[in-house]
Amino acid sequence: MNTAHPADAHPFDQAIALAPIEAGRYEGQASDAYWNAVGPFGGITAATALHAVLQHPDRLGQPVALTVNYAAAVQRGPFVVTARALRTNRASQHWSVEMMQHDASGAAIVVTTASAVTALRRATWGANDTPMPQVPPSAAVEPPSWAARIAWVRRYQLQQLDGPMPREWDGLASDAPPELASLSRVWMRDAPPRPLDWCALAAMCDVFYPRVFLRRRRRVPAGTVSMTIHFHADETALRATGDGHLLGQARAHGFAGGFHDQIAQVWNAAGTLLATSSQLVYYKE
Amino acid sequence: MNTAHPADAHPFDQAIALAPIEAGRYEGQASDAYWNAVGPFGGITAATALHAVLQHPDRLGQPVALTVNYAAAVQRGPFVVTARALRTNRASQHWSVEMMQHDASGAAIVVTTASAVTALRRATWGANDTPMPQVPPSAAVEPPSWAARIAWVRRYQLQQLDGPMPREWDGLASDAPPELASLSRVWMRDAPPRPLDWCALAAMCDVFYPRVFLRRRRRVPAGTVSMTIHFHADETALRATGDGHLLGQARAHGFAGGFHDQIAQVWNAAGTLLATSSQLVYYKE
Repeated sequence: MNTAHPADAHPFDQAIALAPIEAGRYEGQASDAYWNAVGPFGGITAATALHAVLQHPDRLGQPVALTVNYAAAVQRGPFVVTARALRTNRASQHWSVEMMQHDASGAAIVVTTASAVTALRRATWGANDTPMPQVPPSAAVEPPSWAARIAWVRRYQLQQLDGPMPREWDGLASDAPPELASLSRVWMRDAPPRPLDWCALAAMCDVFYPRVFLRRRRRVPAGTVSMTIHFHADETALRATGDGHLLGQARAHGFAGGFHDQIAQVWNAAGTLLATSSQLVYYKE
Repeated sequence: MNTAHPADAHPFDQAIALAPIEAGRYEGQASDAYWNAVGPFGGITAATALHAVLQHPDRLGQPVALTVNYAAAVQRGPFVVTARALRTNRASQHWSVEMMQHDASGAAIVVTTASAVTALRRATWGANDTPMPQVPPSAAVEPPSWAARIAWVRRYQLQQLDGPMPREWDGLASDAPPELASLSRVWMRDAPPRPLDWCALAAMCDVFYPRVFLRRRRRVPAGTVSMTIHFHADETALRATGDGHLLGQARAHGFAGGFHDQIAQVWNAAGTLLATSSQLVYYKE
């Protein structure tokens, strides 16, 4: 039983809550509130893996890189997550994370693996070479008029700008130029609003649905196999963002042989680049 | 002593050679031929980690994703690399790799960790939404007139198109628009030429020097912390490429607090997208 957060906590904090078994070993519960089609939202799994690292008593610094591998669908019920520091340098630390569940036969199986790098960030020269695209402010964009059927989608305030999920699955070829053919842009924040932290930022890097849906206007089985996030934000940038909207943008470079990539950039409303990510998505047909 | 490849093999095959200790556990030698400043070229380390997976007798399918974390500088001498399949699905497999060395005190330390996903690729709909940029063919580009001082650079035929390494470290600010300020394009292949395979492709995703050098025209300490590669090529695309040149392109999205990202795309000369990658680079000042 996970008792790390009371029942009146934000749904996100309930979903990523981990009860320590020992240092670096925690029990959590697959979140119904962030349920997707055949398991929890991949973003909440990424956030939970990162949470295990951040809660570790030996953790050094802030997250700078995170890779999450979705090895098997997480089932309803409890899981155990283990975070180990494999290497600690003067200013950086390398983490390995495993999430285990029991399958129907009672055998322990690995459902998720992750690696993370945490580091002490220093004041250095910097530049944002990916300015936020010019889009209408979130206050000027209508929220969707329909309630999402998928549970995790209701956990976000999403205001789609470009590349919404197709409403008609007509299979028509896109006439957009290739760099725009799979592009989505969306204003997003937690519902209800919640001050941004590392775990929430990690989850929001996975808000973008599989690009193959948009590109083909056709429903095909698809799911994330692996996701990597590089964090550009420091604690100051998170605090400056507060519970404000983030602008997210995603597209694919290419689709071939059952897999496509999907890169994303996330800014706060002031235009600070917070994170970039790249994921590999499996698709059929 | 690593006896997996004879001394007259291609330098790349010598560098990534692994002598089996038992299934999934191998001994290798840090490669002088691919030496960088304070350790081997990160690309050869990535190729070696992938090689451990590909040599495993239980391996299923082709690599689709690889993340390599550079935990500590690899020292000269032997290392032991272990590849474990943590999860095998019907059509995909999740791998964990660790590379260990003994430090000066004789203690075993983790120098590199990696995760990989291999999968059976199926014939599906596909699209290349990142056409190869229009550049002069490799035959029309002069090779550099100088011999590189860094060993690993001499292991590649590199014909730089845009964004060469600065020759003068004058610290002048770039007047290029942000999306071009850290952009490099280069024709590349092994020296001497060698038919492309997964390991060689993984290594070539790391050929691009740290973007902070180009962006600032200033030498600062910098090094890759973590690199993720998503493979778009299948075996057919590799065979079609043979020992021909690849076109590589890299840029950074942003620089902040001692870290920048660096994304890259790699095509063969026929314009087939072979791989995309994203890495996180540490820099000082």
